[in-house]
Amino acid sequence: MTVLGNVLGRATIILDEGGVDLEKASDNLFAADPQALYERWDEFRNWLSGWQPDFDRVAAVPLIEAELLSPAPFPSQVFGIGLNYRDHAAETGAEMPGRLAVFTKYPTCITGGFEEIVLPDGGTVDHEVELVVVMGRRAHHIADWEAWEHVAGVCVGNDVSERTLQRAAGNQFSLGKSFPGFGPMGPWLVTPDELTQPDDLALSCVVNGEVRQSSRTSEMVYPVSRIIEEISAVVPLLPGDVIFTGTPAGVGWVHGRFLEPGDVVECTIESIGTIRNTAGHA
Amino acid sequence: MTVLGNVLGRATIILDEGGVDLEKASDNLFAADPQALYERWDEFRNWLSGWQPDFDRVAAVPLIEAELLSPAPFPSQVFGIGLNYRDHAAETGAEMPGRLAVFTKYPTCITGGFEEIVLPDGGTVDHEVELVVVMGRRAHHIADWEAWEHVAGVCVGNDVSERTLQRAAGNQFSLGKSFPGFGPMGPWLVTPDELTQPDDLALSCVVNGEVRQSSRTSEMVYPVSRIIEEISAVVPLLPGDVIFTGTPAGVGWVHGRFLEPGDVVECTIESIGTIRNTAGHA
Repeated sequence: MTVLGNVLGRATIILDEGGVDLEKASDNLFAADPQALYERWDEFRNWLSGWQPDFDRVAAVPLIEAELLSPAPFPSQVFGIGLNYRDHAAETGAEMPGRLAVFTKYPTCITGGFEEIVLPDGGTVDHEVELVVVMGRRAHHIADWEAWEHVAGVCVGNDVSERTLQRAAGNQFSLGKSFPGFGPMGPWLVTPDELTQPDDLALSCVVNGEVRQSSRTSEMVYPVSRIIEEISAVVPLLPGDVIFTGTPAGVGWVHGRFLEPGDVVECTIESIGTIRNTAGHA
Repeated sequence: MTVLGNVLGRATIILDEGGVDLEKASDNLFAADPQALYERWDEFRNWLSGWQPDFDRVAAVPLIEAELLSPAPFPSQVFGIGLNYRDHAAETGAEMPGRLAVFTKYPTCITGGFEEIVLPDGGTVDHEVELVVVMGRRAHHIADWEAWEHVAGVCVGNDVSERTLQRAAGNQFSLGKSFPGFGPMGPWLVTPDELTQPDDLALSCVVNGEVRQSSRTSEMVYPVSRIIEEISAVVPLLPGDVIFTGTPAGVGWVHGRFLEPGDVVECTIESIGTIRNTAGHA
């Protein structure tokens, strides 16, 4: 009941029976724009808890992967976390930073869970499966113990990265991680109460059927609650803001392997789902 | 005639006689929101070129510094450029990056040219005078020779930076440069055609009357047109997006000097104006 999708730009309640359009189901109480919904997240959750589906009035339509876009398609602020799994830090040879390493993925790179990853000419493009958090309340100076209360939900993300630019740009990661299509998110947003162990979920990245990354979110150096504490000590997080929480070991570049046209990249997180993005040429 | 201000949240035409409210002067053709105006920048410029002030109908009101807010108060995307003046790169001991070094200042840090710089507890906060560019058109894959046509205008900025966090966060600059109030911009937006030499402007930063930074924008490694070419090769720039173009030598931390409560920081750029921000305690 508390899984929300973005079907062709419209906020959609995801049920076993299919997707139910939120604007129609709520008699226009909530607008169709999924990004705007986070501004009224508590109100939406409250309304949803009293809602009963009436499929005679508003139909549940079958879900089609290609129609499932990002549950937060244009956030005001996007936070990426570097080196948040020890095994990934070790494989890159990087020293663990003393504080949370935060970069951005510019909002124009955010895309759906089944869109193409467009490879720039001559690019050295890599995958990074990540748990992605979407904020449901403004959060400034929030302690870790209260952080999850400010989260609308989580989904699966791929922090797609162009490694040559990422390093050449004075090692500032933001630009090389922000080509259009480099921020797939999906397949939908799962609220934290749907998860028995929101801080311990298996996650994996499979390329052309071969497992490249496989770990658990419990291996994070900074778990979600600490990430929110650290960021919100500096920057006020806004409803609909997005956090890519870092990737485990197994990225391609440490093995000299990069994405090629036609590669199928599947990122999966336990109890959430799978996104599948195919690499293509510009 | 082509200088635009943000007076207490309202887009305002700046004339010798004072500020004229754009919404009123245009008979509601343009809304008051300065950020939304960039979506219709060409239309606005066209309208303005045929407009004649009629002070009997819409008064020119005296400009009060404290009422002048950022000409782009909540951009979708903010780009900061690192090490864009050789003398600054030299003073920090940093190697020149092979590609443009881009970080973000999160939009929640953008503030007006006369607001307080709130110092975090125990902070090592520093000034960086910079030319700031605001985009007036979408720009994707734009060559340097056509880049200025996509610029709405320029203003004075201070890329305020918390040095300890900037380094500790794995040397990812974005978080340490994004405390609330760390992105003063103003005093208003000057369109490029107002400037005889938009690529050669004297800029300076004066703290408590003492000159700390003094250079010319012609000393940039990547001039404005090349910055736009480099960013737009990756990320589509949107109308109202903001670029902090880098700072010359003279920042405080290389001399062990940081901002203290009561310090008055004045940043000035030739043919644009001066912003003045006083440091204060949280």
